[in-house]
Amino acid sequence: MLDTMTRPVEQAIPAAFEQRSTAHEKLVIFAWSGDLDKIWPTLILANTAAALGKPVTVFFTFWGLFPLVRNERGITGKKWMQKMLSLMNQGGTAHLKLSKMNFMGMGPMMMKTLAKQYKVASPQELLETARDMGVKLIPCQMTMDLMGLTKDDLIEGVEEPAGAATALAVAEGAMTLFI
Amino acid sequence: MLDTMTRPVEQAIPAAFEQRSTAHEKLVIFAWSGDLDKIWPTLILANTAAALGKPVTVFFTFWGLFPLVRNERGITGKKWMQKMLSLMNQGGTAHLKLSKMNFMGMGPMMMKTLAKQYKVASPQELLETARDMGVKLIPCQMTMDLMGLTKDDLIEGVEEPAGAATALAVAEGAMTLFI
Amino acid sequence: MLDTMTRPVEQAIPAAFEQRSTAHEKLVIFAWSGDLDKIWPTLILANTAAALGKPVTVFFTFWGLFPLVRNERGITGKKWMQKMLSLMNQGGTAHLKLSKMNFMGMGPMMMKTLAKQYKVASPQELLETARDMGVKLIPCQMTMDLMGLTKDDLIEGVEEPAGAATALAVAEGAMTLFI
Repeated sequence: MLDTMTRPVEQAIPAAFEQRSTAHEKLVIFAWSGDLDKIWPTLILANTAAALGKPVTVFFTFWGLFPLVRNERGITGKKWMQKMLSLMNQGGTAHLKLSKMNFMGMGPMMMKTLAKQYKVASPQELLETARDMGVKLIPCQMTMDLMGLTKDDLIEGVEEPAGAATALAVAEGAMTLFI
Repeated sequence: MLDTMTRPVEQAIPAAFEQRSTAHEKLVIFAWSGDLDKIWPTLILANTAAALGKPVTVFFTFWGLFPLVRNERGITGKKWMQKMLSLMNQGGTAHLKLSKMNFMGMGPMMMKTLAKQYKVASPQELLETARDMGVKLIPCQMTMDLMGLTKDDLIEGVEEPAGAATALAVAEGAMTLFI
Repeated sequence: MLDTMTRPVEQAIPAAFEQRSTAHEKLVIFAWSGDLDKIWPTLILANTAAALGKPVTVFFTFWGLFPLVRNERGITGKKWMQKMLSLMNQGGTAHLKLSKMNFMGMGPMMMKTLAKQYKVASPQELLETARDMGVKLIPCQMTMDLMGLTKDDLIEGVEEPAGAATALAVAEGAMTLFI
């Protein structure tokens, strides 16, 4: 799968791969968006960086936390407002929407179909690869409180929930992206 | 308030706080969005970084400038187009909208209610804390020109308006985020 | 044109310009959004950084690739889904929309009119200046595959299409922004 992901690059600019041994600057992504079209670059950049030998941490906050929710979870949260928010914005990689041109789900369907045809990995595959490659996935504690999410609502293999101070400490000296 | 903001972190990962004395890399945020759900991470990251001892600058540009407008200002601008834009997108922390699920203001109302229940500071409180902690708030000159805003339209305590070259110069060697 | 672009800065904070000779940290922008209000900061930051003597690379990915499409191209792509996406989201700097308050094109029209009045360069002018100043414009290979775009669909003067690994390698040690 990773081969597929990085295929065009290896063909186009092999020199980039020779830097593999020295490219050890950390990458820290603040994954704020939970949209399909943002989760894709978040995870493709995270996994590609991990393949290049970089230590990678993704801090999932606000809407970005929802793709980490288990697909089989329906409505989450304890208070009615939390339940209502989860109803309008169901978590899990199976329920991702496009940030624009969503067209009641037709946009994402088309994107996913094209992705399959061109062998671009799905968010679910990318998320599993990220965990396998040792990418650290940190859920934002404050968002979990706000949305009424518990660790049981999230997929396996994520780190202990933490806050902004931890994310900033990890990001010290790293390449940082807010997505 | 800051205690509340960083509370989950201190409980979860105290080690991050031991780094306080060495964590002096600058943080520069390009705050492009004026939405409630983006102003929150902008100010929480800015204030947390300041609490960790980092010099922090936030450069407010495009839609991001509007939360710096005084809440009591109604329509801003001189030309009719500027007035119309300010009518559709009223400035000030009291008029923030969600980037998605706004539902005519019901989404922000629910978010703000949940934030209050879970002791997450409001944008207004965060903005005041930022100024108190010495976070530099720079309004983008070009945006002020475009939108017809004057320094009198903005809250007290912001820096002199400046442009992209200044923002880039300040960002030299800093951790940078575009939010 | 660059004079216009950086005018407010030179007046406001001349000190920033004295740093010109030492400000050589690279700038790498991941240009994910193709909206008018995001292409503006992308290109203004890129060109201003280039004027300050920084090596600048912009990696155009996902929606961000569309502003690089030639204005005279109509519908692009080979498969019907690609054609349909290009119909809803026509490429080229002449067809940019606002991320919010688009109002069927009235928002962008007003923004462009104000920009002209205040001598802010248009995306088309900024793109041409970027090429003239040696800003490297890299189209994302994976996006081109997904959207069925070929190099013939893109404007002159862009680099060979490449992938995430190349972008990350170029970004090593650079100031990075995801816009």
